[in-house]
Amino acid sequence: MQPMNALIVPAITPLANPELEHRLRQRVNTKTKPPGSLGELETLAIRLGLMQQSDSPRIEQPQVLVFAADHGLVAEGVSAFPAEVTPQMVHNFLHGGAAINVFARQHRLALQVVDAGVNADFAPHPQLIDRKIRKGTANALHQPAMTADECHRALTAGMELVRELPGNLLLVGEMGIGNTSAASLLLARLGGLPVAECTGPGTGLDEQGLCHKTRVLQAVLARHAEAQTPQAALAALGGLEIAMMAGALIQGACERRILLMDGFIAGVALLVAERLAPGTRDYAVFGHASAEPGHGHLLRLLNATPLLSLNLRLGEGSGAALAFPLLQSACAFMNEMASFADAGISGASS
Amino acid sequence: MQPMNALIVPAITPLANPELEHRLRQRVNTKTKPPGSLGELETLAIRLGLMQQSDSPRIEQPQVLVFAADHGLVAEGVSAFPAEVTPQMVHNFLHGGAAINVFARQHRLALQVVDAGVNADFAPHPQLIDRKIRKGTANALHQPAMTADECHRALTAGMELVRELPGNLLLVGEMGIGNTSAASLLLARLGGLPVAECTGPGTGLDEQGLCHKTRVLQAVLARHAEAQTPQAALAALGGLEIAMMAGALIQGACERRILLMDGFIAGVALLVAERLAPGTRDYAVFGHASAEPGHGHLLRLLNATPLLSLNLRLGEGSGAALAFPLLQSACAFMNEMASFADAGISGASS
Repeated sequence: MQPMNALIVPAITPLANPELEHRLRQRVNTKTKPPGSLGELETLAIRLGLMQQSDSPRIEQPQVLVFAADHGLVAEGVSAFPAEVTPQMVHNFLHGGAAINVFARQHRLALQVVDAGVNADFAPHPQLIDRKIRKGTANALHQPAMTADECHRALTAGMELVRELPGNLLLVGEMGIGNTSAASLLLARLGGLPVAECTGPGTGLDEQGLCHKTRVLQAVLARHAEAQTPQAALAALGGLEIAMMAGALIQGACERRILLMDGFIAGVALLVAERLAPGTRDYAVFGHASAEPGHGHLLRLLNATPLLSLNLRLGEGSGAALAFPLLQSACAFMNEMASFADAGISGASS
Repeated sequence: MQPMNALIVPAITPLANPELEHRLRQRVNTKTKPPGSLGELETLAIRLGLMQQSDSPRIEQPQVLVFAADHGLVAEGVSAFPAEVTPQMVHNFLHGGAAINVFARQHRLALQVVDAGVNADFAPHPQLIDRKIRKGTANALHQPAMTADECHRALTAGMELVRELPGNLLLVGEMGIGNTSAASLLLARLGGLPVAECTGPGTGLDEQGLCHKTRVLQAVLARHAEAQTPQAALAALGGLEIAMMAGALIQGACERRILLMDGFIAGVALLVAERLAPGTRDYAVFGHASAEPGHGHLLRLLNATPLLSLNLRLGEGSGAALAFPLLQSACAFMNEMASFADAGISGASS
């Protein structure tokens, strides 16, 4: 086993602030509506206020980063789509034709694609950030997906990237044929769960394909039984985009950005981030409940209730982008709605 | 019992169109994403295409109408808020300070307030449509909430209003202290359900208040045991805003507009509309599942799955407005996403 470079993580400020929370709740309750009647949106507005240490939470210059990388494990037949789709989809993102492009345009989210380790060369493009660590991970069935140094560099690159970003909301998405396998492996290892319960059809395996994928993942976990710490598991099991997303999420939380979460794979990156830098999860808003079966386990581990439940399983950050307007609505009602006093409206009898 | 004027309802075109549905599904499946991976958004896109008889569903000039009216039954202590809040909230809408104003501005929805029967006089205002039938319903515990003629005029006014509206999407909301009572009564009567199961805290009754409300509603139903047809029940039980909303929804469906539904009270208006003009429900998209207990029964009666589930119980159309961007997303992915062929992307192995 290779020695791990410890990741240097700046402190993450805890959310707890009873005084501010009380003020935020009072502010919600003065609005011209029956108390509690905006349901989860009220809870969300209060959380956003706590994240921003502000009575008036606001979203500014929201940023989408789509992290792309390839996976050596695809050689074992764990995906319904061939590996060449990863670079093809990177081109699709850069041409604006993917789902995340459509939803980012709709909601005016800035979008950049991060090459964390795609097995292809790309011409420079204004929306492409080259942080390629290597051309795809190694096949984790036979060797660690990446070296300790590669894993450390991927995490650090994710942190550095976010340091340079404007805005106060970060949405991470991903593209990588084979990355539900890496995510299932990490969830099983870090969550102490049977891998069969963490494994799903990904981009669309049939039942036979799913059985095969599960057997491969069981063998991978047996091969790397010694990789138990978060960083060791990440290096052994992959993938490069998950590692770089985890770094980005840690840095985002350090800077008190809102982390608007997508589904299964980004969620596993958050699990890794939380284990490496406890408190990261406090800055997460969970966009949606994915149809990928492992996501339910992940949400329970992270004690998370997502905003949407639309049976999405696309990735790219698409589910998070669909939830984005609800965060805007939470800020908007806090900042724009009249109070009972403003509007001269009678209160409830009690 | 007064004689009922039969409502003259133009025909509603059935949605079924297997050829178009097949084309829409194929179009969804050519998009650069794993088949089915946009979940409910795919189902929604296909339904919107069927409503518009188009391969490329689009939303144009979406219109919000907030119907306001008062309820004589409030004299029996069925609401946590006093009746004067209805006109106060109409002023709040006209000043842009209510939740629906905030969300309508966020999503660029045109908004008008319809006075269907508020117990107050208003100065003219460019966003206020005066269709006042009477100053609040009569107290349904002692007499019919409205006469057969008033009920007919309210329905007809709702239909006429929509005939003059631009756009292809209609969102109806409501404001009326006491209107969860009318909605619960109609749901119990038209759905054949025990009224206790249809009754909830509304704007915020405590347990004792809820018991009292339930007893009052049971007495109202007993008082109007003969009012069994949809129009007779509507006249006997109220309210004016529910009747006018029902008319608006019928006309909207006749014109193949998308009916973006809010929660419990607007939903009961749809139930009335569907009973008066079968097929209206086919043009409905259900925005959210309300926290008001009767809404679950209503959704089952209408065989509906809502987009959002955020424990909202505000009304005004607020929950529908929060769901609106998902409809835009459904249209946007259909019209803007690249196909596998466009993007030169390899398909799944199978």
